[in-house]
Parts: sequence; structure tokens; C-alpha cells
Amino acid sequence: MIVGKVVGSVVATRKNEGLIGSKFMIVEPVENMSDKGRIVAVDNVGAGIGELVLVSMGSAARIGCDMANAPVDAAIVGIIDNSIGLED
Amino acid sequence: MIVGKVVGSVVATRKNEGLIGSKFMIVEPVENMSDKGRIVAVDNVGAGIGELVLVSMGSAARIGCDMANAPVDAAIVGIIDNSIGLED
Amino acid sequence: MIVGKVVGSVVATRKNEGLIGSKFMIVEPVENMSDKGRIVAVDNVGAGIGELVLVSMGSAARIGCDMANAPVDAAIVGIIDNSIGLED
Amino acid sequence: MIVGKVVGSVVATRKNEGLIGSKFMIVEPVENMSDKGRIVAVDNVGAGIGELVLVSMGSAARIGCDMANAPVDAAIVGIIDNSIGLED
Amino acid sequence: MIVGKVVGSVVATRKNEGLIGSKFMIVEPVENMSDKGRIVAVDNVGAGIGELVLVSMGSAARIGCDMANAPVDAAIVGIIDNSIGLED
Repeated sequence: MIVGKVVGSVVATRKNEGLIGSKFMIVEPVENMSDKGRIVAVDNVGAGIGELVLVSMGSAARIGCDMANAPVDAAIVGIIDNSIGLED
Repeated sequence: MIVGKVVGSVVATRKNEGLIGSKFMIVEPVENMSDKGRIVAVDNVGAGIGELVLVSMGSAARIGCDMANAPVDAAIVGIIDNSIGLED
Repeated sequence: MIVGKVVGSVVATRKNEGLIGSKFMIVEPVENMSDKGRIVAVDNVGAGIGELVLVSMGSAARIGCDMANAPVDAAIVGIIDNSIGLED
Repeated sequence: MIVGKVVGSVVATRKNEGLIGSKFMIVEPVENMSDKGRIVAVDNVGAGIGELVLVSMGSAARIGCDMANAPVDAAIVGIIDNSIGLED
Repeated sequence: MIVGKVVGSVVATRKNEGLIGSKFMIVEPVENMSDKGRIVAVDNVGAGIGELVLVSMGSAARIGCDMANAPVDAAIVGIIDNSIGLED
């Protein structure tokens, strides 16, 4: 997983059926945490813009969030409320 | 997922059977969104060149787009029509 | 897998059900070992801050650590106590 | 998927049983297409050195090419004979 | 897959049960081949330090090497004894 900040969201009216009802958030990894850039993650916990979140990627996002048959490869699975060493 | 712009397409006459009938689009991630460069994604929603799209990668592309037995590792699964914070 | 040092941890009270009870450690890959930056891994072996650990990623983390239905994409699966050529 | 050029091949006499009979080609991604460097892909379509090919990665390579139980994580699944915007 | 050179090994006494009996080798990708840095791969073919090997990653490593339930995300699956274009 990575920790990132929710910095935006996207809306797609025309989309794969399995994605109907999903909220797509743009997450920017915190510094030092992964260098792959921003990703779009489905929100599984009710995260808002500006919050620090835990993002799971790959098959874990689909299977761990009850969306096993949806084309989802990243999901917000937790909201960070405490940390040690995150910003060092 | 990532958001990218459809910038081209490729055609392969000689190909794996599971890919027959698929349209292969070249997608360039928007700035700040993933630094892995362009990818080729199967079009699942009728996207055209120049459109901003949502791309899903890995097993999610196969399984979420009814191509579970095809060698597909990326698919266009939505067309972006609205966004917050995408271009910041 | 990669070898990294445990440098911190994060706590998320609001999270996906499958993650309840898991400990989330921040792991920094050792030099030369992967250039993707820090990751958050679920602790499967009782690792502490400062220890050198073996981290498994992707579906291996879920399936190999008896969390097949949890949104976990990285797990600490060993504590390094000996090595050849690790720091060269 | 990515598009790359076949630039070489490797032979391994001592190998995992599931790989017996496979041809391993070295593929260099075209410019702008993925920045991860060269990969070794199993040839699924009869590609030759110098040809532009479509490469599928991850579980898609195994499952989509009838090698579900082989340790294959990349496969050449098409030969490019036409493209728009590939070299821009 | 990638081709790399075995440059070391790690030992973990305290580890996930599924890893008992596995040998963990440090593999450095050859130049131009993947830019992700060194990885730790389970040895499936009896590779020694200094040898050029073929490494498979992701679910392919687990499933293709009869370790479907182990937290293994990379395995050495062949020893390179011949190549064309590898060092160009």
C-alpha cells in the first residue's frame, strides 16, 4: 500500500458497468512514498479531499473491496489518523 | 487507475486469438499521473483520439471487461467528462 | 521481494473491514534495491522499527499471508538476520 | 500492453519445466512507451528480431496464452503492422 | 521476465511458514533491462552467485513454481547459457 493525499476527483458518465456507483479520487503519494506519480483510486471508506489515505493497488483493490468483477486496480482502504516516521 | 489522453492506435493482424476484435489505443498519462510513459489499452467504452480516459491495469482490465482469458493487461474503462484537481 | 528497513508505521481507525487487526509498517527499500520509494506493508512476522525485513508485494502478500480477501498488496514476510552482497 | 521492438533472445537450458519449448525474446519498448527498460517476453505469435510487437505483462501473459501454470510474466501477443501516433 | 546477475543472498530465520526451505537470492538486472533496481528472488533452478538468470515476477513466480500459497513474488526460473543482443 501507499499513503497519499486526496487531491481531486474525476467523473466518467460513459463507463464500464462494473464502475457504476463508484467514486474516483485522485491521490498524490506523500513524499518519499512511491515515485510513480498520482493515481486514481476508488473510494472504499468515505474519504474527502485533503485527507491522508491508505491506498491498495492491484488485485487486492478489487478482491478486498467486494468488487472482484469490476475493472478496479486501486482503492482507498483507510484514512490515516496517526503515524510514526511518515514525513521523515 | 490512471487518467490519460488517447493519442493513437495500433493494428496487429497477426495476434493472439483472444485479441481478435479488440481495438488497441495508445494512451498518454496526463502530467503528474504516473511516470511510466505511454501504454496500449484495449478500448472498452468507445473512446476516440483526443479524449481523456480512465485506464485500468493488470488483472482488473481482463476480469473487469469480460476478457478473463485474453492477454489484456490494460483497458480504457471510462471517458472523463468532469474533474477536480486533475491538472493542478 | 525486496529488502527494506522498517522506518515507521501508520494507524487508520476508519478502514476496510478486512484490515482490522493488521499492523501497517512503513518500509524503506535498502539502497540499490528497487527505486520505487517507501511502501506500507502489513506485518506478518512481528517486525519492529529499525529491523531489516523481506517484503513481498502483489497477490503474493494477500494469498501467502492468509489474507486472501483483504485489500493488502504488500506484507513483511521475513526478518533478515544474515546476508551476502546486500549492501554492495 | 506496450509496443516494443524485438532486439534479441536468450536461451536457458536449465530452467523451470513449465518453460520448456518457449522462445524468450528481448523486447525494447519504443520511445515514450513505458520507461521500465527492456524485458524478456515469451513469443506467442512467431515474432522475429527487428519486428515491432505488442507485449502483454503480468497474469494476462500466462492466462491469455495458455500457459496458466508456467512462470511467465510477459508475452508477445501481436505483431504491429499499422499504427497512428506511435512515434510522435 | 528480466535477465539479471545473482549478486548475493539473504537469510531470514523468522519468516512466513510458506517460505521455509526457500533460498533467497539477490538479483541485479543487466544494464538496459528494467530500471527498478535489485530484487530478491526465490531460487527455483539451483542458481549460484555470479550466474546470469531469468527472473519471473508477480503471480507467475508463485503459481509457476509450485508455491501458489507462499508469499513469493519473484523467482529465478532459468539460467542463461546463450543470448543474442543481451548486452547491446
